[in-house]
Amino acid sequence: MKNILVLGAGRSTTSLISYLLKSAVELEWNVTLADYALQLAEEKVNGHPRGKAIAFNINDEIQRTDVIGQADVVISMLPPRFHVLVAEACLALNKHLLTASYVSDDMRALDKQAKEKGLLFLNECGLDPGIDHMSAKKVIDDIRDRGFELRAFESFTGGLLKPNDREDNPWQYKFTWNPRNVVMAGQGNVKFIQEGRYKYIPYNRLFRRIEMIHIPGHGYFEGYANRDSLKYLDVYELRGIQTLYRGTLRRPGFCKAWDVFVQIGATDDSYQMEGVNEMTHRQFINSFLSYNPNDSVELKLAYYLKLEMDGPEMHKMRWLGMFDDTPVGLQKGTPAQVLEHILKKKWTIREDEQDQIVMWHLFDYIDGDQIKRVRSAMVANGEDANETAMAKTVGLPLGIATKLLVQGKIEAKGVQIPITPEFYNPILDELEKLGFSFIEEEVVL
Amino acid sequence: MKNILVLGAGRSTTSLISYLLKSAVELEWNVTLADYALQLAEEKVNGHPRGKAIAFNINDEIQRTDVIGQADVVISMLPPRFHVLVAEACLALNKHLLTASYVSDDMRALDKQAKEKGLLFLNECGLDPGIDHMSAKKVIDDIRDRGFELRAFESFTGGLLKPNDREDNPWQYKFTWNPRNVVMAGQGNVKFIQEGRYKYIPYNRLFRRIEMIHIPGHGYFEGYANRDSLKYLDVYELRGIQTLYRGTLRRPGFCKAWDVFVQIGATDDSYQMEGVNEMTHRQFINSFLSYNPNDSVELKLAYYLKLEMDGPEMHKMRWLGMFDDTPVGLQKGTPAQVLEHILKKKWTIREDEQDQIVMWHLFDYIDGDQIKRVRSAMVANGEDANETAMAKTVGLPLGIATKLLVQGKIEAKGVQIPITPEFYNPILDELEKLGFSFIEEEVVL
Repeated sequence: MKNILVLGAGRSTTSLISYLLKSAVELEWNVTLADYALQLAEEKVNGHPRGKAIAFNINDEIQRTDVIGQADVVISMLPPRFHVLVAEACLALNKHLLTASYVSDDMRALDKQAKEKGLLFLNECGLDPGIDHMSAKKVIDDIRDRGFELRAFESFTGGLLKPNDREDNPWQYKFTWNPRNVVMAGQGNVKFIQEGRYKYIPYNRLFRRIEMIHIPGHGYFEGYANRDSLKYLDVYELRGIQTLYRGTLRRPGFCKAWDVFVQIGATDDSYQMEGVNEMTHRQFINSFLSYNPNDSVELKLAYYLKLEMDGPEMHKMRWLGMFDDTPVGLQKGTPAQVLEHILKKKWTIREDEQDQIVMWHLFDYIDGDQIKRVRSAMVANGEDANETAMAKTVGLPLGIATKLLVQGKIEAKGVQIPITPEFYNPILDELEKLGFSFIEEEVVL
Repeated sequence: MKNILVLGAGRSTTSLISYLLKSAVELEWNVTLADYALQLAEEKVNGHPRGKAIAFNINDEIQRTDVIGQADVVISMLPPRFHVLVAEACLALNKHLLTASYVSDDMRALDKQAKEKGLLFLNECGLDPGIDHMSAKKVIDDIRDRGFELRAFESFTGGLLKPNDREDNPWQYKFTWNPRNVVMAGQGNVKFIQEGRYKYIPYNRLFRRIEMIHIPGHGYFEGYANRDSLKYLDVYELRGIQTLYRGTLRRPGFCKAWDVFVQIGATDDSYQMEGVNEMTHRQFINSFLSYNPNDSVELKLAYYLKLEMDGPEMHKMRWLGMFDDTPVGLQKGTPAQVLEHILKKKWTIREDEQDQIVMWHLFDYIDGDQIKRVRSAMVANGEDANETAMAKTVGLPLGIATKLLVQGKIEAKGVQIPITPEFYNPILDELEKLGFSFIEEEVVL
């Protein structure tokens, strides 16, 4: 009898809990779901005989020690800043830990101690990071095992809206995860390697330097670069690779329209705006444009950014109601906070709408005098606003990894990410059985 | 017999020391110049009978207490981060303090204690901040004293190169003060008020939202906005004003060409570039452009930013040698550090070249049913690379304020900036005698 403890019962845990409870009967384990909001945890456990919901305050040291002490494996779905607190308790109490978050420097520092105690601290085992690591590293290892040299690796993921023809939404986009992260996306500098050269893109150019990607059966997507692709040089052991590029997918036309917000400064989160409590959508946009009482806000914006007055970007702005005299409805805020609040009015996903996760990789390798290209793609759809594709693709890899760990099928100890065969083979296999499969194709260039 | 202590003997203290030593004979005071580099201090004192140069380490508490303890008035020309250390010593030892730097929050916190001890801590008494405060506030107070309402206030300052026809420099610009500050200028957000509306400009648009300004006898200048004009609402008591705008002056054409660096990301100081030790100027520019081996760096840049291949911006880039295969000559660096290093090769002022300070204010006020506009301008030229206009306009207001203080002509105590008549009237009067005068003109709009 094993005790699995899940910390945090937020939106992205739905599928993880379902998977753990489903496995609980077969594998004879108990699942405890701990959240600051007991009711939220109770709803997710939903009276399952092998499940238990408890109220939990991560900052309460006594409770933290008590609750973690009763578990065999801990899965932290808390905000990333709490992971180290959990990890230190796991270290003291000899418990394994799994998260879907990036390894922080503080987490990495616990590697040696975790190894000494024979504990696994598995991180980055969700969607992105997670399934991206596993699906890419599997192909990379296969190419190398066959003795070939990898020349190029590109990888893109997008959390999107599943296409539907019931609604006129020219953005073909709604918030399917943390809206704030969407508004802030791309801030900071972007680095990658193209044909052996280091390349840098500043934020103000990011949404104009896009790549068009076609996925058979799913059409075209546009990809813009993620922050620092260079860190994968070491993580995947890619030193010497000619092209290394990671990015985010959106549907065609999104980036050029989003760039309107970037260009005028509407995504800035560094200062409080004046008079937000009395501001309308139209005044919000106008505050970034020059003063001229004889011109409309629409014309000033179109002229400022050299947009067609009736073109697709202005249409998307109008559809969002950016020029309406509607009050913003906030007391105060930074430009990014005001923008997020306005966007939520049109970009909040309805209960009956479905999200979609799209992941796409490209690998070029040298086979004699040929260059061969492997393309690999996964498209996953959500069922509704609860069982989202995002929740499934973040939660299931964690659930599967937990099962493998409890079954004694994982040898690795210490702070790990799932980039070795003992992780990616069984996890990708079970994901495929659950309906999450990658379609691969290979061509000679 | 009074003892004046000047901390710091850097480039901007030349005129201050000259002024203090000149006044020393007449006013029977002694001047001590303290610098970490004794030789630098000795060169500036140059054997003057009333001057003394000493080696000084601000971080040596015993020396700090000893040296400040012997002074009656302390002028800190150290980097701003040291001012509070000096101020705390002045407070403990009952000494007046003068600086040319912005009042920090830490400095402001000492106001009450300084007042209680009857000490003056005068800050922002150089050029900008300094002469800008005094010359603007004098006109603002005059307009109010006559019973009129101020509608608009704009103020621009530029540290420029004096025009000369010996040299082909299409930028008409060289570094006349801290090069790093020039490269970083405008980063962060910009706020101002135009016709009663709050306006914001992001960095990526700053150098394209310029204002043309004409100064009779000196031609046209372009002005771009400084960071946060709104703080002057309280400093000058301008709440309710319709237009409030502060900016920086450059010669025509500068901003559009500088914007090339901004747009490609070459002024970013947030990350280290790869391979700087082997990088050429041309590779530096190319690292911000997309990969295409069949196109030249010149064409890629011109196409990226929609510039004419033979237009003024590309000409300025070529003049700087940005496309040359010359090694950068640094071991490592951020984009901003690499750019600064390249720019210094062409933008370092020669010993025989002269700098120029240009300051310009605009005031609109309501007189019955008329709107009247006052324009006020000062242009100051340097003599050579030592007696620069920058050194004179930063140092002389401090020197004059010191004289007034020692002569008992200043009543104010505590943390102050020179925006009241007891400061601005005598300081502006003496500056005028020294050749720094504002030309005012008034028109009815």
